[in-house]
Amino acid sequence: MAETPKTLTVELGERSYPIVIGEGLLANAAEYLRLAGVPDKSPLLIVTDDNAGPLYLAKLTEALTAGGYRALSAVVPHGEPSKSLDVYNDLITRAIEEGLDRSSAILALGGGVIGDLAGFVAGTYMRGIRFVQVPTTILAHDSSVGGKVAVNHPLAKNMIGVFHQPELVLYDVETLKSLPPREVRAGLAEMVKHGLIWDKAFAEWCRANAGRLLALDSEALAYGLEQGCAIKARIVSRDERENDLRAILNLGHTLGHAIEAVAGYGRFLHGEAISIGMAAAALIGEERGAAGLHAETVSMLEALELPVTLPADIGTEALMDAMQRDKKFREGRMIFIVPLAVGRVEIASDVDADTVRSVIERLKRSGEPS
Amino acid sequence: MAETPKTLTVELGERSYPIVIGEGLLANAAEYLRLAGVPDKSPLLIVTDDNAGPLYLAKLTEALTAGGYRALSAVVPHGEPSKSLDVYNDLITRAIEEGLDRSSAILALGGGVIGDLAGFVAGTYMRGIRFVQVPTTILAHDSSVGGKVAVNHPLAKNMIGVFHQPELVLYDVETLKSLPPREVRAGLAEMVKHGLIWDKAFAEWCRANAGRLLALDSEALAYGLEQGCAIKARIVSRDERENDLRAILNLGHTLGHAIEAVAGYGRFLHGEAISIGMAAAALIGEERGAAGLHAETVSMLEALELPVTLPADIGTEALMDAMQRDKKFREGRMIFIVPLAVGRVEIASDVDADTVRSVIERLKRSGEPS
Ligand SMILES: NC(=O)c1ccc[n+]([C@@H]2O[C@H](COP(=O)([O-])OP(=O)(O)OC[C@H]3O[C@@H](n4cnc5c(N)ncnc54)[C@H](O)[C@@H]3O)[C@@H](O)[C@H]2O)c1
Ligand SMILES: NC(=O)c1ccc[n+]([C@@H]2O[C@H](COP(=O)([O-])OP(=O)(O)OC[C@H]3O[C@@H](n4cnc5c(N)ncnc54)[C@H](O)[C@@H]3O)[C@@H](O)[C@H]2O)c1
Ligand SMILES: [Zn+2]
Ligand SMILES: [Zn+2]
Repeated sequence: MAETPKTLTVELGERSYPIVIGEGLLANAAEYLRLAGVPDKSPLLIVTDDNAGPLYLAKLTEALTAGGYRALSAVVPHGEPSKSLDVYNDLITRAIEEGLDRSSAILALGGGVIGDLAGFVAGTYMRGIRFVQVPTTILAHDSSVGGKVAVNHPLAKNMIGVFHQPELVLYDVETLKSLPPREVRAGLAEMVKHGLIWDKAFAEWCRANAGRLLALDSEALAYGLEQGCAIKARIVSRDERENDLRAILNLGHTLGHAIEAVAGYGRFLHGEAISIGMAAAALIGEERGAAGLHAETVSMLEALELPVTLPADIGTEALMDAMQRDKKFREGRMIFIVPLAVGRVEIASDVDADTVRSVIERLKRSGEPS
Repeated sequence: MAETPKTLTVELGERSYPIVIGEGLLANAAEYLRLAGVPDKSPLLIVTDDNAGPLYLAKLTEALTAGGYRALSAVVPHGEPSKSLDVYNDLITRAIEEGLDRSSAILALGGGVIGDLAGFVAGTYMRGIRFVQVPTTILAHDSSVGGKVAVNHPLAKNMIGVFHQPELVLYDVETLKSLPPREVRAGLAEMVKHGLIWDKAFAEWCRANAGRLLALDSEALAYGLEQGCAIKARIVSRDERENDLRAILNLGHTLGHAIEAVAGYGRFLHGEAISIGMAAAALIGEERGAAGLHAETVSMLEALELPVTLPADIGTEALMDAMQRDKKFREGRMIFIVPLAVGRVEIASDVDADTVRSVIERLKRSGEPS
């Protein structure tokens, strides 16, 4: 029998919202929307992709219709290329044609790509309408919380976006059962990241329970997702717009985003790229005095079957260039999140380019067959 | 000799900002930016059009450069068609290529088109960077205050946007001297609107001083712009995101936007279209009991040489359809701002379609030669 759903709250004053995590929640979507104050007089638009859509769209639509909502849907191709201004424009056109108004809501049914894309539509259609996240990937326990929404620019990832908090995150963990194993692993990278930046015990729990997590054991998964969401929610509550603290969520992302871009979007999944980025950050931390940090971090990432080295064909200077275009660059300085120990990081703007270069080279050498 | 500049404040807590109105302010732009907290380590991007640019861009750039800022610029074609996702995308690309970062600011040097377009870039580049309005039209006393920024969708105006408050509105009224007379008149429509919704005495002042305003008399203009900005600022302070009160600023806009769209953007200037819309709203007000309201309103609009009738070739049903797509439609009902008297309006959702139709027909008949 399914456990009772767990509810966490992202505390943001009048923009606070619940994250509901549990099995079989799609069937009760209408109730949860009503509780979250989504009106039923105006049409809803469900945005999904061609993987999640065929699996879960009918179920969600039926539940909403039975509950008195009028739910339209738009299915976009899966994958990072859909996070583009072109697909965004198509969705806006669709929303206008279907008569969505200021009382309408956009629902994102899918992973982080769908959440980011649909969220940017919701954040800008008529200067912002209601938004509901219905995540269906493990990674999306991270991306669906906190209100960062964006599309990519060909020159840089997530460059075009806004902060737009959802009214509700409805996380039906039953949907995770259809995830390909590689997507499972990539999602767990963001889960262990939450431990690495904030909670050593949780990072160690992820390592100890790696086998259960990889096998999608319901109990382990529910606990891990809850902890991950809870850490993210706490950080976002303290610094919604990333003026300071929230930046720690970017552990592994300065290099990670560069790897995604330089390798060509798709070769590395986001979670894989940031796993390598977290291994790099650990090396930087070690150079700044945290003995043994790299080995400890790598043991956690490898337990989750995540990559921790860089293929030799990824150009070091291309990575350096890409990092300079990233949002983590400010007033001419690169911003790195550097671990001090497992569970504790600092926001450093004094990591020089040569240190980064030499760390990249070390990650490449350690990837060579010995 | 130039008068001392006047400063008003838009009170929005931590998002409060000054509106500085005066002659020759462009020359001191660097000082004002510094006062407003715009850092000089990161590049600025001035967005302007091919009318305002040739006249004022060199002056602004020199002043900023002399004051220690690095100011880049982008010149777009003038007119409403530049408020498009395509031009927006070009500006985002330019911002990335020039290395604008989170500490950069976007400056809008021009009228409402440039303010709305550049503001949407600032509001979404890297999820929002600093924004400064440098208005150069009379109409922009309205558009530069309040943080509504947007681009158009081919199907509907201002459909894609966000709320993004500027750090500063720097209003150099000397720039208004080069405005074509038709743009002067159109801008005065929004000025008298502020009287019609909020301040009977100000509306009467506009009528009494119409000749001086049309002749760009410095003193009259300064007073009128200050009052207009002050009324707008007060309304925005009470309701930043248009949950209720702010909607009154849309007097004349439900029909006005429809006229712009149906006639084809450009045939009517925005100010002309809303002048006709305000005449229509007065007729609706009269039907609901405000005797003499139409004649009184029309006398104010005609003093400013603004149109108050509709050409017969603009289709009534096309206008009705366009109004249904407008943002002022909600949960199936059309929202009209209806005047109760000069200086006082209500937000009505009970104006039925037939009343609107008959008012449109009356405006057409009164436009026929008798
Ligand atoms: N907004 C944020 O705060 C934030 C945080 C982290 C990551 N992100 C973004 O999230 C994106 C990555 O998210 P993601 O990994 O979820 O990517 P994704 O949305 O592309 O999903 C991964 C793959 O799984 C498929 N899929 C989704 N649900 C499925 C299911 N239940 N069963 C079978 N297949 C399913 C998708 O079609 C896709 O092919 C990136 O674009 C990243 O930038 C955003
Ligand atoms: N954001 C808001 O709150 C708000 C409010 C009202 C209107 N608007 C928008 O503002 C726009 C209309 O603004 P506008 O009337 O300023 O239009 P505009 O920016 O197109 O300017 C009007 C014309 O004057 C030219 N121009 C500008 N400054 C000049 C100068 N100093 N000398 C000579 N020519 C000059 C421009 O090139 C243009 O041809 C519309 O798109 C409307 O939707 C926005
Ligand atoms: Zn991430
Ligand atoms: Zn207007």
